[in-house]
Amino acid sequence: MSKKTSNQMWGGRFAAGPDAIMEAINASIGFDQRMAAQDIAGSRAHAAMLAATSIVSDSDAEAMREGLLTVLSEIEAGNFEFSTALEDIHMNVEARLKELIGEPAGRLHTGRSRNDQVATDFKLWVRDQLDAVDGALQALMKALLTQAESGADWVMPGFTHLQTAQPVTWGHHMMAYVEMFGRDLSRVRDARARMNECPLGAAALAGTSFPIDREMTARELGFDRPSANSLDAVSDRDFALEFLSAASICAMHLSRMAEELVIWSSAQFRFVSLSDRFSTGSSIMPQKKNPDAAELIRAKIGRIFGANVALMTVMKGLPLAYSKDMQEDKEQVFDAADNLMLALAAMEGMVRDMSANRPSLEAAAGSGFSTATDLADWLVRVADMPFREAHHVTGTLVAMAEEAVVDLPDLSLEQMQSVHSAITDDIFGVLGVHNSVASRTSYGGTAPEQVRAQIARWKEVLA
Amino acid sequence: MSKKTSNQMWGGRFAAGPDAIMEAINASIGFDQRMAAQDIAGSRAHAAMLAATSIVSDSDAEAMREGLLTVLSEIEAGNFEFSTALEDIHMNVEARLKELIGEPAGRLHTGRSRNDQVATDFKLWVRDQLDAVDGALQALMKALLTQAESGADWVMPGFTHLQTAQPVTWGHHMMAYVEMFGRDLSRVRDARARMNECPLGAAALAGTSFPIDREMTARELGFDRPSANSLDAVSDRDFALEFLSAASICAMHLSRMAEELVIWSSAQFRFVSLSDRFSTGSSIMPQKKNPDAAELIRAKIGRIFGANVALMTVMKGLPLAYSKDMQEDKEQVFDAADNLMLALAAMEGMVRDMSANRPSLEAAAGSGFSTATDLADWLVRVADMPFREAHHVTGTLVAMAEEAVVDLPDLSLEQMQSVHSAITDDIFGVLGVHNSVASRTSYGGTAPEQVRAQIARWKEVLA
Amino acid sequence: MSKKTSNQMWGGRFAAGPDAIMEAINASIGFDQRMAAQDIAGSRAHAAMLAATSIVSDSDAEAMREGLLTVLSEIEAGNFEFSTALEDIHMNVEARLKELIGEPAGRLHTGRSRNDQVATDFKLWVRDQLDAVDGALQALMKALLTQAESGADWVMPGFTHLQTAQPVTWGHHMMAYVEMFGRDLSRVRDARARMNECPLGAAALAGTSFPIDREMTARELGFDRPSANSLDAVSDRDFALEFLSAASICAMHLSRMAEELVIWSSAQFRFVSLSDRFSTGSSIMPQKKNPDAAELIRAKIGRIFGANVALMTVMKGLPLAYSKDMQEDKEQVFDAADNLMLALAAMEGMVRDMSANRPSLEAAAGSGFSTATDLADWLVRVADMPFREAHHVTGTLVAMAEEAVVDLPDLSLEQMQSVHSAITDDIFGVLGVHNSVASRTSYGGTAPEQVRAQIARWKEVLA
Amino acid sequence: MSKKTSNQMWGGRFAAGPDAIMEAINASIGFDQRMAAQDIAGSRAHAAMLAATSIVSDSDAEAMREGLLTVLSEIEAGNFEFSTALEDIHMNVEARLKELIGEPAGRLHTGRSRNDQVATDFKLWVRDQLDAVDGALQALMKALLTQAESGADWVMPGFTHLQTAQPVTWGHHMMAYVEMFGRDLSRVRDARARMNECPLGAAALAGTSFPIDREMTARELGFDRPSANSLDAVSDRDFALEFLSAASICAMHLSRMAEELVIWSSAQFRFVSLSDRFSTGSSIMPQKKNPDAAELIRAKIGRIFGANVALMTVMKGLPLAYSKDMQEDKEQVFDAADNLMLALAAMEGMVRDMSANRPSLEAAAGSGFSTATDLADWLVRVADMPFREAHHVTGTLVAMAEEAVVDLPDLSLEQMQSVHSAITDDIFGVLGVHNSVASRTSYGGTAPEQVRAQIARWKEVLA
Repeated sequence: MSKKTSNQMWGGRFAAGPDAIMEAINASIGFDQRMAAQDIAGSRAHAAMLAATSIVSDSDAEAMREGLLTVLSEIEAGNFEFSTALEDIHMNVEARLKELIGEPAGRLHTGRSRNDQVATDFKLWVRDQLDAVDGALQALMKALLTQAESGADWVMPGFTHLQTAQPVTWGHHMMAYVEMFGRDLSRVRDARARMNECPLGAAALAGTSFPIDREMTARELGFDRPSANSLDAVSDRDFALEFLSAASICAMHLSRMAEELVIWSSAQFRFVSLSDRFSTGSSIMPQKKNPDAAELIRAKIGRIFGANVALMTVMKGLPLAYSKDMQEDKEQVFDAADNLMLALAAMEGMVRDMSANRPSLEAAAGSGFSTATDLADWLVRVADMPFREAHHVTGTLVAMAEEAVVDLPDLSLEQMQSVHSAITDDIFGVLGVHNSVASRTSYGGTAPEQVRAQIARWKEVLA
Repeated sequence: MSKKTSNQMWGGRFAAGPDAIMEAINASIGFDQRMAAQDIAGSRAHAAMLAATSIVSDSDAEAMREGLLTVLSEIEAGNFEFSTALEDIHMNVEARLKELIGEPAGRLHTGRSRNDQVATDFKLWVRDQLDAVDGALQALMKALLTQAESGADWVMPGFTHLQTAQPVTWGHHMMAYVEMFGRDLSRVRDARARMNECPLGAAALAGTSFPIDREMTARELGFDRPSANSLDAVSDRDFALEFLSAASICAMHLSRMAEELVIWSSAQFRFVSLSDRFSTGSSIMPQKKNPDAAELIRAKIGRIFGANVALMTVMKGLPLAYSKDMQEDKEQVFDAADNLMLALAAMEGMVRDMSANRPSLEAAAGSGFSTATDLADWLVRVADMPFREAHHVTGTLVAMAEEAVVDLPDLSLEQMQSVHSAITDDIFGVLGVHNSVASRTSYGGTAPEQVRAQIARWKEVLA
Repeated sequence: MSKKTSNQMWGGRFAAGPDAIMEAINASIGFDQRMAAQDIAGSRAHAAMLAATSIVSDSDAEAMREGLLTVLSEIEAGNFEFSTALEDIHMNVEARLKELIGEPAGRLHTGRSRNDQVATDFKLWVRDQLDAVDGALQALMKALLTQAESGADWVMPGFTHLQTAQPVTWGHHMMAYVEMFGRDLSRVRDARARMNECPLGAAALAGTSFPIDREMTARELGFDRPSANSLDAVSDRDFALEFLSAASICAMHLSRMAEELVIWSSAQFRFVSLSDRFSTGSSIMPQKKNPDAAELIRAKIGRIFGANVALMTVMKGLPLAYSKDMQEDKEQVFDAADNLMLALAAMEGMVRDMSANRPSLEAAAGSGFSTATDLADWLVRVADMPFREAHHVTGTLVAMAEEAVVDLPDLSLEQMQSVHSAITDDIFGVLGVHNSVASRTSYGGTAPEQVRAQIARWKEVLA
Repeated sequence: MSKKTSNQMWGGRFAAGPDAIMEAINASIGFDQRMAAQDIAGSRAHAAMLAATSIVSDSDAEAMREGLLTVLSEIEAGNFEFSTALEDIHMNVEARLKELIGEPAGRLHTGRSRNDQVATDFKLWVRDQLDAVDGALQALMKALLTQAESGADWVMPGFTHLQTAQPVTWGHHMMAYVEMFGRDLSRVRDARARMNECPLGAAALAGTSFPIDREMTARELGFDRPSANSLDAVSDRDFALEFLSAASICAMHLSRMAEELVIWSSAQFRFVSLSDRFSTGSSIMPQKKNPDAAELIRAKIGRIFGANVALMTVMKGLPLAYSKDMQEDKEQVFDAADNLMLALAAMEGMVRDMSANRPSLEAAAGSGFSTATDLADWLVRVADMPFREAHHVTGTLVAMAEEAVVDLPDLSLEQMQSVHSAITDDIFGVLGVHNSVASRTSYGGTAPEQVRAQIARWKEVLA
């Protein structure tokens, strides 16, 4: 084996020694500064409560609250110098507050600790994200509704196993995604309601002997109530995990839609044209329009679900209450949230811009005896055959058409009757793709009237 | 490299050739027979609806419904011969029905397909599991409440970083888990409400032209409504993924509690005694009582979250509507559900049986200057020091006690006043562990009165 | 909330009480009986060593070894009654041995424990699987070589982003998978070599005071050497994790190939025909041939990688040495191994049976100005243009052809020269798809000669 | 639902519209600039080869090579302005090269494409990381060897189930980790050897018609050979996945050791003292030394294995050849590599600094009848009892000692003989913990002589 010293071999990355290593692994200010606004909002609510309960004087509280606003404006203006030596956002803010207002700053941390403070900050941040995802989902659903409305009665192939099964409508297909993203929306809202309990005042882990008013801080920060067990309040990261779970399922839906867009954009399918704004070209092959955005959206499930795995692995087997392992929670959630928002925005843009290739869709819809099921259903409905027998008759007719290299509607009535005498002229009313989709009027079916009813329902919900 | 033929090398496992391979990979009857009751319930509801809508005759429907009951009783009695050639539970049941009632059996499949049928069966199965987990969670929470009630005022160390931080009460610690499992319960119920839409009648993917009544079948099967998009209805496995997500978070909670039980059972901690029923002994070391059940519970998160990863991976990038990939959904959910139920039951049993070692807990609670924070808080509250200054004074006192190898309450008033003159005799009222926990009366804090209030609240919720 | 008791609610699954629960969670005989042959091989080697080192008498050892063979034949014949009360395969075998040979059976466990015994059994089982996968990979690679050889010079589109980029050869595409599975083969062999150290004799965790000969048992069981640290030997599950990691990457390769087969089988692509043996049909739509096996193979990565996640999660944060959590290792590996073997066998069968649709491939290869790059390369090579300039000229020519709705070779020399005077008649020699692929003679390129060279190289490697 | 527009709701993050979204999702320069050195090394090798094969002139190649060095020095000096409009590191470097050397820059891209270029860059980067991890593992192993050597004969409890099982030596326990990290080292080297094939020259996906010399560029970049299939070369990310798999298993080992350090640092165990440099204190509880670094190391498996899941999910089901999804590979590997290196460095530092608390270890080693197995083994070895019978006798003796509240060596010979007459005075020679560990001389056992032999072996390996 090599005789190089470790420092030589791994490039002196930590040549500065243990202190550099410890700082690198321990400090969180590099990422938790993203929670500055939440941290300051939490501290301002805490200060107000400390005054209301006479734990600090009104004037001290006022000084804190004003000072904190100054700190916030410095951070937002980009004038704030974050210090790694101060480790985290809480200490950075408090240290600056002390410079600004002096001694009263030292009273801000009364009746709380960094454990409940970070839990509160992070919850507020995640809650903001849930609201952002809520908005982005609605925007995407509206884009899908617009597509569905335009093509409520355009026919296209409905696939199973990527093989043409039965004709469906473009609007119906778009509305399938509205249902999926609608469930995502519902999950996001349930998660928000469940997590909306305020950890502030749990202190290190045991609560506090100061006569704090947790209802007041909870209310001021928009929480429904204070959390009911201080040990749990500082140990709990369910809200982050539930966000990641909901985000992962949503990303899975996006991956399915993105896969369809990639396949539909191929030269072999040509079902849709994606706009240039979400594609990349090639100077040398001008016809080549790569669906880059769709591919990247398809891939985003990787890092979003990877973040879910990461945090679940971190939390596995951790004893109560706070352990430093939990500091690994934020970067995962930040990255997943950013990428989910980006993927939703990109998908919304693509859906708004894309145009369905109606002739291709219609041509493909009719190929492959796609209305054979309609024929069988007619035999059951009109000729009162048991379904399994109707299937058999249909199979014989399809074989006949296949041999004649024609489509089902091209067979003559005589040919059909040679297979089964119960067939009448009426049969031709169910064989075309437009007849087929129009007939599927069961609730939630692909008939344009059903599709339009669902569009109307969702429009009202999202109004 | 080896010259053996592939058959020699891998043991002729598939020596029978392609047909054996295809049967092995394709047939689902080996596992989907677990959904027999759900399949038959779905078919019975479907038959009743076919008659109510005059799609089949009343007598045919009655024959189907009676025949299906017979099939169910055969399966429950273990007299049913499942056939791999018939691939899945649906075909096995229908084939037997045909033997029993003849021609009408062929009319049962009118207006549905295996795609909506399997989605309905599986949803019913998952819904049953959600109810089962609901019950198991409640049972576990009640066991925790009993423990909490017994020891609402027993003191024990509250840890952060597995280092003693502040004293807490046994009841408070137990109630932290009640909060966690309470969130699990809430997640399970949200999942149940969201998934409770009936896919039956979506048919292959496009709906049907038969005048079926989807409201009726939905109602009969206990669903809130029929699903609103037939393409989505046969493509959706969100309900399974949401079950797995909720199960994974619950398993994470179980892993944390199990970790604590393992640590608490060590000779070094001796905080609890687990009952013999959930431990294994050793004939040679009779004092050795291995916490096997706790370790196995700790491990269950592996396979439960592994199932979540498995199904999420399967669903990634699948185009609509049904693809055969989705057949991989059931075994994952079955295994996760079985193991979650087993882990919950084992944890409930362990919690019911375990006894806290009160003297060990109390002794450990008082060690390590665990009430130093109380001293600091007193200085803030009574002597009106800023918190940061109070911390500094406390640090000096702790250093003094450490040097004298005594605990904080053992310092004399004079010694204390030599550090800060504001200290009075009152200080001794906050230094003991019982004083400490009694003082933490903030909402959700560790004070026995707070713990008892939370116990009362939860008892009412779970009544 | 519900007033039902927990037993009512979750169906009395564990109504029998704590003992039933503990048995259900603790016993492993339900699955570890799959290691019976390995367990008995390990015990026989151990017995021989105990005699060779005079720890037991030769006659006792002989009795053990014979008795163990009897037990094995009983198990293989299906006549062995496994007992859950005896918990695991080790105790089941030893108990039966005692019935068969009496007192000497009690001497078999000298100098070992169940901890090193199970590690040895499981390693032997995993090693067998690595060999099985080795064989299955070779068989699949040979099937791919056969396909590659048939179509070494058939042209097809090479895709990036599922958009036609440049023509490649069928043989070249098949050989890309040979490279992938070749890396899998190499990984499997590295894993086998690394894990081939024998844990037997590590005893419970500390080694033993008996004068055992670990070299001898290691040799007899086909290991390269005994493991060098007894604590590690009983705590290590790296070999299982490395198997799962290698299996996951292999399953990923299979998922990519399966995805291509599904897309290529669509009516829109029609690049390949899969055999009926690996497809399922529909009685009603005879043209519909669903690529079920390909879809199921595509899905298998889910459970295989899920098993990897499961075991990694179990092992996270486990202190040394043996913890009961590790009992969760086997089912994951068993399931992953079974499914990987099944997927490899199914893929081999599909590859052997499938036929490429040469006319479709060739037609698709030439569409979309796929030889534009060849034109640009010619300009660089012959007319000495910088590459970036050549790209620009090519772009202009493609635009000209596109406007004229012709393909590149259909432009006249005059038209081409109007864009750049350096173009000569020679240009037509590079524009057809056959010319294009024939020209890509760089090492590893798509030219038939290169493809044939790689086929020859791999045939030798796999001979 | 809300009536806010999507822009209002999600904060105008992408208010700039589709172009901002596309740039955000598509550009990679934000992260792939980390591969600048590798990109330039690859281009310089390519330029040299283009000259050697007379594809470009020597003077052009020289200009490129010099210009690329200038670009590198600008980047290293921090003077390089990266442009998002130029998307990625390749275009940023080439654009700057053009500014520096003009027209010859346009010839650099001859016979290659961004697809093979990025594969080459990324492989070089991963290979560097494998070397860095190699060095870091060796450094950690040396730190463990030093600990092992100091305490080769110190006794401590060997645990199973976190219950004392048998005494082991400190050195033996340290060496268990040397074995684990030794396997990691071996995995890293296998991965390096397997991935060391050069993609450069695969071009877009089909190879090239330029007479390039792939052997030459491969050699110059330190690869063993060019990759053998151009389609595979641009589609392959196995090397990244294998890095992540090996890193995950290594991180799992780190999590186990970190867990032990956390437990061992608790007040209840007091087995080790971690240095202040890798702990954090509390101003108020000076005795509290939180093992933050150990906890963070324990957590790192989360993000490292999460990255593995992420990339595996991305690659699942991707058709050949390059898809844009693969752009998601780099950030995962970068983050995993950084965190693995950090965790290894922190663990090395902690191991170097930590001091074992020998009296605590020894006291704990002897408690709990930990030498009962030794007694049983003596009965087998000296009194020739079958092992199972010896276990029974030992159990009786332990029960006797337990009742008398003494330890095993405190029983008198008479008391022992009352249980079994074969016991002699010799028995006391095996009962102490030092006797116990000294007796475990089987290969790999805990006896100090065995431990020292393994230390010597590893020192030679790592010399």
